[in-house]
Amino acid sequence: MASLRRILHPRSVAVVGASRDPARLGHRVLQNLIKGDFAGAVYPVNPGTDRVSGLTTYPDISAIPGPVDVAVVVTPAHTVCDVARSCAARGVAGLVVITAGFAETGEAGAQREAELRRICREAGMRLIGPNCLGIMDTGAGLNATFLPHPPLPGQLGIMSQSGALGVALVERARLLGLGLSSFVSVGNNADVSATDLLEYWEDDPATDLIGLYLESFGDPDGFGRVARRLSARKPILAIKSGRSGAGDRAVRSHTAAAATPDVAVDALLRGSGVIRVDTMQELLDTARLLAAQPLPSGDRVAIVGNSGGPGALAADACERTGLRVPELCENTQQQVRRALRPALREVAAVSNPIDLTADGDAAELAGAMAAVLADPEVDTVLVVHTPRSTPGDAAAATAIGEVAAATDKTVLACLVGHDGTVEPGDVPAYAFPEQAARALRHAVDHARWRARPAATAPSPPPGADVGRAREIVRYELAHSGDRWLDPDPTTRLLRCFGISVAETMTVDSPEAAAKTATALGVPVALKATGPTLVHKSDLGGVRLGLTDPDEVAGAYRELSASLGGAMTGAIVQPMAEAGVEVIIGAVRHEAFGPLVMAGMGGVAADLLADRSFRVPPITPDEAGEMLAELKCAPLLTGYRGRPAADIASLREQIVRVDRMVTDIPEIAELDLNPVIATPGGAVAVDARIRLAGRQPVDTGGAGNA
Amino acid sequence: MASLRRILHPRSVAVVGASRDPARLGHRVLQNLIKGDFAGAVYPVNPGTDRVSGLTTYPDISAIPGPVDVAVVVTPAHTVCDVARSCAARGVAGLVVITAGFAETGEAGAQREAELRRICREAGMRLIGPNCLGIMDTGAGLNATFLPHPPLPGQLGIMSQSGALGVALVERARLLGLGLSSFVSVGNNADVSATDLLEYWEDDPATDLIGLYLESFGDPDGFGRVARRLSARKPILAIKSGRSGAGDRAVRSHTAAAATPDVAVDALLRGSGVIRVDTMQELLDTARLLAAQPLPSGDRVAIVGNSGGPGALAADACERTGLRVPELCENTQQQVRRALRPALREVAAVSNPIDLTADGDAAELAGAMAAVLADPEVDTVLVVHTPRSTPGDAAAATAIGEVAAATDKTVLACLVGHDGTVEPGDVPAYAFPEQAARALRHAVDHARWRARPAATAPSPPPGADVGRAREIVRYELAHSGDRWLDPDPTTRLLRCFGISVAETMTVDSPEAAAKTATALGVPVALKATGPTLVHKSDLGGVRLGLTDPDEVAGAYRELSASLGGAMTGAIVQPMAEAGVEVIIGAVRHEAFGPLVMAGMGGVAADLLADRSFRVPPITPDEAGEMLAELKCAPLLTGYRGRPAADIASLREQIVRVDRMVTDIPEIAELDLNPVIATPGGAVAVDARIRLAGRQPVDTGGAGNA
Repeated sequence: MASLRRILHPRSVAVVGASRDPARLGHRVLQNLIKGDFAGAVYPVNPGTDRVSGLTTYPDISAIPGPVDVAVVVTPAHTVCDVARSCAARGVAGLVVITAGFAETGEAGAQREAELRRICREAGMRLIGPNCLGIMDTGAGLNATFLPHPPLPGQLGIMSQSGALGVALVERARLLGLGLSSFVSVGNNADVSATDLLEYWEDDPATDLIGLYLESFGDPDGFGRVARRLSARKPILAIKSGRSGAGDRAVRSHTAAAATPDVAVDALLRGSGVIRVDTMQELLDTARLLAAQPLPSGDRVAIVGNSGGPGALAADACERTGLRVPELCENTQQQVRRALRPALREVAAVSNPIDLTADGDAAELAGAMAAVLADPEVDTVLVVHTPRSTPGDAAAATAIGEVAAATDKTVLACLVGHDGTVEPGDVPAYAFPEQAARALRHAVDHARWRARPAATAPSPPPGADVGRAREIVRYELAHSGDRWLDPDPTTRLLRCFGISVAETMTVDSPEAAAKTATALGVPVALKATGPTLVHKSDLGGVRLGLTDPDEVAGAYRELSASLGGAMTGAIVQPMAEAGVEVIIGAVRHEAFGPLVMAGMGGVAADLLADRSFRVPPITPDEAGEMLAELKCAPLLTGYRGRPAADIASLREQIVRVDRMVTDIPEIAELDLNPVIATPGGAVAVDARIRLAGRQPVDTGGAGNA
Repeated sequence: MASLRRILHPRSVAVVGASRDPARLGHRVLQNLIKGDFAGAVYPVNPGTDRVSGLTTYPDISAIPGPVDVAVVVTPAHTVCDVARSCAARGVAGLVVITAGFAETGEAGAQREAELRRICREAGMRLIGPNCLGIMDTGAGLNATFLPHPPLPGQLGIMSQSGALGVALVERARLLGLGLSSFVSVGNNADVSATDLLEYWEDDPATDLIGLYLESFGDPDGFGRVARRLSARKPILAIKSGRSGAGDRAVRSHTAAAATPDVAVDALLRGSGVIRVDTMQELLDTARLLAAQPLPSGDRVAIVGNSGGPGALAADACERTGLRVPELCENTQQQVRRALRPALREVAAVSNPIDLTADGDAAELAGAMAAVLADPEVDTVLVVHTPRSTPGDAAAATAIGEVAAATDKTVLACLVGHDGTVEPGDVPAYAFPEQAARALRHAVDHARWRARPAATAPSPPPGADVGRAREIVRYELAHSGDRWLDPDPTTRLLRCFGISVAETMTVDSPEAAAKTATALGVPVALKATGPTLVHKSDLGGVRLGLTDPDEVAGAYRELSASLGGAMTGAIVQPMAEAGVEVIIGAVRHEAFGPLVMAGMGGVAADLLADRSFRVPPITPDEAGEMLAELKCAPLLTGYRGRPAADIASLREQIVRVDRMVTDIPEIAELDLNPVIATPGGAVAVDARIRLAGRQPVDTGGAGNA
């Protein structure tokens, strides 16, 4: 396979379907190639004419004299496979198929696309598109698209699965002064995918920052692996549409993409350090901050401005988005005051947000910024400047830029009503304070992700006996097939991975139940078992707090009478200590592989879907994050005088579940519900595991991402 | 007092401090007055020169020959009171004080402002400002501000308590093509307030829509009354800063405004039908929709576009904000297909969101819009059009406008990347889909608010004995002063308003407790009482499920031993039926008056602050909304097979609490916690009332809003 570098930095480009008609794409693509700074050769291909735009045309790709790295194809859909064959014969490295009329149009188109992909694969030729806008690389001076305006050069690489969004992103980036390194419209992404492009950008010195618009993932595992590695050096921003039901319908009918449940996407992106944004504006706003400013070292923002109202709105927006706007210490307030004329000292607000009033001049603004930047309790300065349509505005902008250029802290600005960039110092400026707050919040989160300890938990975890676990699984699959495991092998399997499960004794008669209760020590819980009794408590199959052996035997008889044949036996457990109920589980998603969940127990938490997901591998720190993300997390840390639960044990349980579903691919579903978390530990008192004999989904292929 | 109409439609305006120096405000205000279409007389006042901008100047206000309706003052702060006195003597109706240096600068400035207000009040002269930008009225051709650009005429009235935000709003409105009827910058709002302006706009035929930026409320009650009346005819949009702690600090130091807790503000605005927005962009985006389009009749949106990606993002944005993007029925899909060429029928997505693909032309777009507009299951059409920089874009815009002009449903557009308006048809167009979704959601909510049944609950409620309640309060205040009431008068007081309270017997010995338990019937609850025992259960003062008289007597002795002197007696109650725990309460806020709360009980709900607030008067429907807004609301309507609670009884309890705190102003705090809601009713099993002898805060004054 040809490398993407050869395609984005080609020595020569042929335009198959180059046209003299200015309304045609074949004309516009050729014009863009000529108008750019492209240093290589450009060959128009068109059998019907001699010259297009002053260049000699060739009747066919085979007639071109020199080597051809890239062929951009704009001929009708039914001709594209033939063109691809001649390109393959000519040794072309990459085909950029702008022509539409493939998988997006139904069955016949899908077959044509499959044929096109086959031709390319066999020839080792990469395929971008079909149904795309083309490609750009500002470093190479390459603009092989039909977009109306050339992009600004810069450090942002953009990939879009939607042409329309690609146009909009590139256009808005240009208007905002945000430069691009490259832009690739992958259309139906029949071959070249997001993962391929991440690998290209990883080695591309011109690209420091990546923006993706994704509609589907062909190879989530590969994407996650590359994205996680790359995010540590170059931030990746992604819009993934299809969060909602309706959005999902659109994506499917648009690119026939497989449905990917949003929670799995979210877990994958989050686990890979990808900054997921909801909107184009958010992507561009955040990219402008990350492109120009250092990552903030924390979430504390000082706001400096020339008016109270916008300052208050900025503080509201910061706090709403989860940033802190701390009170400034007396010393810093004193330093701010010193930067002001005596008359202004009386009037200005020197606490956070700082309001120099409309009378504050550029020097005073610079002084106030310097004062707060010197405060070690401040991570970021957000300047909220309301332009007055006076010469003072330009002086203020210069002051903001100069102070920003002299600090290694993060500086951003809201120039109320105006999007843009303040020079010198490369300070991104936003029209509205909430844009600045949202972008900064993403930067803060990303900085935290980068700062997380990289150490992963050892695999297998200490004390785990993976060999024994595999034996149990093999035996169960051979003897019982795909199904929910009985309590006994469930407990043994969990214990192979060191997961703490309540003492559980299996019994099959009232007498055995009473005897076991005596042996374990009362009080005990009695739970009916049977292959069909999955949600035991829903069927009234659980009796708690039984305090003497006779009561246990009686309870067994009652359960047996009420459940009849569904009950094949029961388990006896010592009553759990009182604690906080937590759910830990895992499910193997067909496309995404395993997903691990932590959630809060209880009806209200259930109602609010108070759950957090990750994809393996999960570090102990990430497990801690999963717990901290829960809305009901304060219940774990000692709410209203209740004792705090043993968070370390809970983290450990999550990590061990993560290892277990990674190491034992036959586990299709696993539920520890509830795990009782107390100050002394975390113990699962009910557990279910479902095995599936099939192999895990192959995630190593060259599919799309 | 002069009417605001005379001030916004004056016959003549004097500019006190008119200047020849173009850098001075006195010059810019005069220039704006002259350049506008103002038909009345303009009198520059300046003792140092003969002519300014071609007009004869007057040395003093008294030297002006004709009547003077408005005087705009830009002279230094120390001269303003003298100017005001001469204006008063001259019979000026309104003073617009642009000069800063008043309450916003500290104690001396505050005194100056008090003096200025006194002068104006005594003369019956209205005061706008000080420390403001001035006033505009496009209908009167009046531009008495120093803003750089004249506004477009239109139907939106804007008031701002922040000059900077005022500038930004007026500027952005102009750039977006949104016309203003009037703009009033109230500065420190020493006299003319939001309430005054709402009353003015109520009768102003040019104003159909109102935008407010508020930092403080001087007269919440008056504001609420006027806003509620006006919202039914003219939508009011409001930004109220100070949601966050830091924002609040800024507001206080900026205008020395009284702290107004956000929850009270929210309850006041929501109860009055005011559309509260968080940001300037949201205000302008929503105003553009409301100014141009009819209110939607429901929350069902059909999305029609020429690309899949932006369509998917629009659907995501709509669903994220709570709008519905329903599947279209087969018939409508058929109609959409019929509007397309045969070739396009194969390729286009005709479900919601509809994607005509880039090949869809203007006629096909119009046809698809018409098809979905004809569907009675669709309330609003959102067109998501990605411009292609071709002549087709103009044709598409015309098609959108023409279809919109021919329907009485709501039509709005996202022209990806471009804010503006589509003509004809006056369709607001947004650069990003999420802006459209947010604006539409506000419009849908507002339409719902307008459609709510207007009937309020009768006051006093049926069966209430207000006279008896007043007697109890008088007696308790006279005999015990301001404090938490004993259980007995608490129960009697609640019953005067027909609020259902569990049978509660007061006892003062173990023997009496046992006897009462027998009389009530076991099981019972025993709860220690005493003036300092407010949070009984926190102190271990509650025993539940006592099943025989001896156990009750024993429990009394134990409580008495452990609580000692704090316990002066106890109450005995029959054990409540199992049900959902709800909290209903009320608190009298110093500035806002009574606030009524409904919330969910239980630890998780407490943790999530699952509460909803309103200001009186609360209709039964609003009480239902309060319950429906709770995150845990599904627990009340039958969650996972549990029985549904009696919502009608809960609504009734809320309305009766509302009446009670309205009719008995001495109630400072009231808590029914918990109210146990069952399928058969809702009964408070614990109740607390605190009385305060003071009169309720006077909210009828002429203060600010």
